[in-house]
Amino acid sequence: MTDSPMLEQERGARVAWARLSEPEDATMWEWVATHGHVEALRRVRRGALGAGRLVVERSRLFDLEAELSAADRLGARIVVPGDDEWPGGLDDLARPPHCLWVRGAGSLASLMARSVSIVGSRAATAYGLDVATGMGHGLGSRGFTVVSGAAYGIDAAAHRGAIAADAPTVAVLACSVDRDYPVAHRSLLARIRADGCVVSEMPPGSAPLAKRFLSRNRLIAALTRGTVVVEAGFRSGSLNTARCAEQLGRPVGAVPGPVTSMVSAGCHKIVRDAFASLVTDAAEVAELVGDLGADLAPDRHVADADEGWSSTDKAVHGWVPFRSPVSVDELVRRTDLAPLVLLAALGRLETAGAVRRAGFGWQKVPPAKAPASSYAQAVLPADGLG
Amino acid sequence: MTDSPMLEQERGARVAWARLSEPEDATMWEWVATHGHVEALRRVRRGALGAGRLVVERSRLFDLEAELSAADRLGARIVVPGDDEWPGGLDDLARPPHCLWVRGAGSLASLMARSVSIVGSRAATAYGLDVATGMGHGLGSRGFTVVSGAAYGIDAAAHRGAIAADAPTVAVLACSVDRDYPVAHRSLLARIRADGCVVSEMPPGSAPLAKRFLSRNRLIAALTRGTVVVEAGFRSGSLNTARCAEQLGRPVGAVPGPVTSMVSAGCHKIVRDAFASLVTDAAEVAELVGDLGADLAPDRHVADADEGWSSTDKAVHGWVPFRSPVSVDELVRRTDLAPLVLLAALGRLETAGAVRRAGFGWQKVPPAKAPASSYAQAVLPADGLG
Repeated sequence: MTDSPMLEQERGARVAWARLSEPEDATMWEWVATHGHVEALRRVRRGALGAGRLVVERSRLFDLEAELSAADRLGARIVVPGDDEWPGGLDDLARPPHCLWVRGAGSLASLMARSVSIVGSRAATAYGLDVATGMGHGLGSRGFTVVSGAAYGIDAAAHRGAIAADAPTVAVLACSVDRDYPVAHRSLLARIRADGCVVSEMPPGSAPLAKRFLSRNRLIAALTRGTVVVEAGFRSGSLNTARCAEQLGRPVGAVPGPVTSMVSAGCHKIVRDAFASLVTDAAEVAELVGDLGADLAPDRHVADADEGWSSTDKAVHGWVPFRSPVSVDELVRRTDLAPLVLLAALGRLETAGAVRRAGFGWQKVPPAKAPASSYAQAVLPADGLG
Repeated sequence: MTDSPMLEQERGARVAWARLSEPEDATMWEWVATHGHVEALRRVRRGALGAGRLVVERSRLFDLEAELSAADRLGARIVVPGDDEWPGGLDDLARPPHCLWVRGAGSLASLMARSVSIVGSRAATAYGLDVATGMGHGLGSRGFTVVSGAAYGIDAAAHRGAIAADAPTVAVLACSVDRDYPVAHRSLLARIRADGCVVSEMPPGSAPLAKRFLSRNRLIAALTRGTVVVEAGFRSGSLNTARCAEQLGRPVGAVPGPVTSMVSAGCHKIVRDAFASLVTDAAEVAELVGDLGADLAPDRHVADADEGWSSTDKAVHGWVPFRSPVSVDELVRRTDLAPLVLLAALGRLETAGAVRRAGFGWQKVPPAKAPASSYAQAVLPADGLG
């Protein structure tokens, strides 16, 4: 790093505070807000500010060199305010993270310039997973960075949708970035790091404790230009993310579902409470967060791939998978359309280059490669990577 | 009928206009608005007002006695403004019906004092039918008269739900009340007439022409205190009903569904367009139309029968029929609950007086008979029945 000595000192103090305190710790944030990170740390080391014995001891033992080389070994950058990669959205938080650990090829600040979080229940339904994948894909195709929490269910589906669109995606973790959590998502997290990044405010070695998920949710809300909840029960943590987003003045969308589905009940509730807009597809989400985005990044104005399609064509397209081809019989079953209607739609979609025959079945044709990053590189200043 | 001579003359002229013109006919409504029904008819008979030859001829041939005895043979009342049974909501229309033909045991004006329309697609899904039946039942149980169009799909399900709650329901037809349309709903229509009524502005012998459905929709909207759309495609006629309701200042609700369902797309659209509120159950609909209702009729404020019940108890109660008792085995199958959970729920419902043992099965205990009409009779002036 080639920081000025002042930024270097500030960075060190921030890393120390990340070590010494849990996210959003009220007492420590008061010290830091009053004295600044550097001076507050100096005072605590002197045993001032009424800090507890343990904190004082740990503040004296804190080893910045060890932290920096731990990050280096992980291939993680430690990002602080003032760095090019620091995402400005975090400054809207009352208690922002002291610093971030970031792993992955993408530059966080540029990725966040056109970003949306897609969150939802771990215990998602097949319907919810389908919608989340489709939205992740649709928003990725439109040049949005999809941000989520890499959890089971909706989170993973949203990341996977974006990846299927060859768009970078960002996972914000409740544990530190050296942990693959959940373990079953080890390869998903590796794939996310390949084009996007994995982010945490927790220093290496931190476990995903329950209260850290709530703190993590505020980061997801603050990092992005808007938040969409795909499926959420009444007590889902993703409603907490949505509430954070709303308090930060970011638009919130919620996907409807059957009124008989418990995991759509939270979505319906936040629409009824009038703080979320009902959204049914990626285009509507883009419109929703685009309003705010106008002053953050000029609108890419590429026509939606599905512009001019009939609603039948859109529905059929939605049911054709990317990876394993699906038979016409199965599509008839899924769409509940008459076979002739279905075949006509497939024909139009094939002509439009949106689906193709594969053996005895049909599959989607992936859209053109990586519009998001080429867009970001064209419009935004180049970012240093730490 | 014991009308004053003036009302009798007015009634006769209104019936004539119903015969001479299609609903909402602009030219004839201008004549009637300018001169009144009686004088406009007199002038047309004289060949004045620039009426076409055919209209003049038919106005001269019009036979009031024949119309009145045709209605009598049907057991239909001809209701005009000034009659106790005339529903005041219709007066909000720019072009209200000249008169109504009403068949059935219920008094239309009292039934409309606490009423809600439930409308939707003919090509409904199993999900939509389920929701419509549940809402019809829930609103019927809460003392609302469920109004719909007796069509296939959502309409019929809503009527049937209300009937299952032993609540009167009202069908408004696009054809005349002497026709059972659709024919497959002959017995449904008979059942509707038994406690509620079947209504039309078309004189006997009128076929259900396409444009008459649009005119019929305005009646459904104007008659009721609010309209709920359960399932509707983008071009569904029920969106037209919803728009009428909104223009009349009546609250509109829409039931969400899967975003992949074409027949939920219209519901989602009107929520997004912010003229409909998202509603997921009968209680939310009651709350929605209750707001406006406060100044139409004092709120009945009887605690909902199911207040304080657990959701399991409510679900079990929903599955116990009124008429033929159902076995515990069958209830286990229907509710998918563990037998012990089910039996506990039945026990609580029995204690609450909501269900009772009948032979080897269980059935609902009917609520205090006809809450809507007894309420209406208490609060509203007594209605003549024609």
